[in-house]
Amino acid sequence: MTEGDGNQAPPPRRRGRPSRTEAKTGPGARTRILEAARTEFSERGYDKTSVRGIAKAAGVDAALVHHYFGTKDEVFAAAIELSFEPALVIPDILGSSTEGLGERLAGYFIGVWENPASRAPLLAIMRSAMTHEAAAKVLRVFVLRRLLDRIADQLDVPDATFRAELAASHMVGIAVLRYVIRAEPLASADPQKIIAMVGPTLQRYLTEA
Amino acid sequence: MTEGDGNQAPPPRRRGRPSRTEAKTGPGARTRILEAARTEFSERGYDKTSVRGIAKAAGVDAALVHHYFGTKDEVFAAAIELSFEPALVIPDILGSSTEGLGERLAGYFIGVWENPASRAPLLAIMRSAMTHEAAAKVLRVFVLRRLLDRIADQLDVPDATFRAELAASHMVGIAVLRYVIRAEPLASADPQKIIAMVGPTLQRYLTEA
Repeated sequence: MTEGDGNQAPPPRRRGRPSRTEAKTGPGARTRILEAARTEFSERGYDKTSVRGIAKAAGVDAALVHHYFGTKDEVFAAAIELSFEPALVIPDILGSSTEGLGERLAGYFIGVWENPASRAPLLAIMRSAMTHEAAAKVLRVFVLRRLLDRIADQLDVPDATFRAELAASHMVGIAVLRYVIRAEPLASADPQKIIAMVGPTLQRYLTEA
Repeated sequence: MTEGDGNQAPPPRRRGRPSRTEAKTGPGARTRILEAARTEFSERGYDKTSVRGIAKAAGVDAALVHHYFGTKDEVFAAAIELSFEPALVIPDILGSSTEGLGERLAGYFIGVWENPASRAPLLAIMRSAMTHEAAAKVLRVFVLRRLLDRIADQLDVPDATFRAELAASHMVGIAVLRYVIRAEPLASADPQKIIAMVGPTLQRYLTEA
């Protein structure tokens, strides 16, 4: 679905008010909805976030949220993807060869978590997924599986998806201990030191058959 | 503090009722309190569990819970340690040499999680720690730090505690993806396959300088 779709399907309830249609459905609406969704999920958690609340925060009609993304779960998945931007960065991380892939992946992951703007929504996502099966399912079905498959596609090892998930599990665990539990010495460790130690582990999982 | 302590300090409110003292404070009381605490924390989560509730479930006076363990946080820490039984198993895991240490640690950790009796409280602990700072602090201060230091003491590598925590982070991440999010293919993987893949990673962290 592209941003242009918005102009073809304005939200039904606004049909009689053409003067506001541009602002409500213009090319920026999709981005505003995603940003609003990310903020709402971060601040309220999965359970208490509603499509209506996201629409309100984005200044659009709830129908437009449904039009662009579908259900609340699908908005949640899109908001998570916004934090990782996998479509943008994964080709860069994978690059043309697997040399240094482990270090690039570790660097990307730590970078996303070190940035407060992406850390807050990621924390919210993890907390939601740990405590609500609906949120766990979104992460499992929409996000992780796609991400792992996309990485595994580029690998030349047996059990590539399993190996990609082992690499992912290590990064998830680092996020839990460093950013959620804040257990020392990992919580205060220099990001470069973590990347230097973890990179070779990810490299082994992803490239050594 | 040993189990014998219970006989020296019966709970104050029961002083006038000697016929019930034996059952309330006998050598089994400490174990019953711990088991009750584990069940209460598992079923209610950290927030909704109280020392009074634990005491009631164990059939003892709340004062006896305080006598044996101190605060709610300290009961929580003791209940977590009951799940891992680190004092019992860590000497065995560490053994007399570091050869095969990674595989022994991975095997122990996966074994604890594969056992439904220990999995339930561990899930509750992780959920609590992800969502409540008080529970995260218990894990950070009372459990992880002690566990990591105990392992690091036996290692002959620089940054031993940092390395022990990287190893721990990998196991925590596996628990999150396999047992909480239940993301495939890790969720359905043969435990032995996971141990065989993860063992060498832990071994590298813990022994290769």
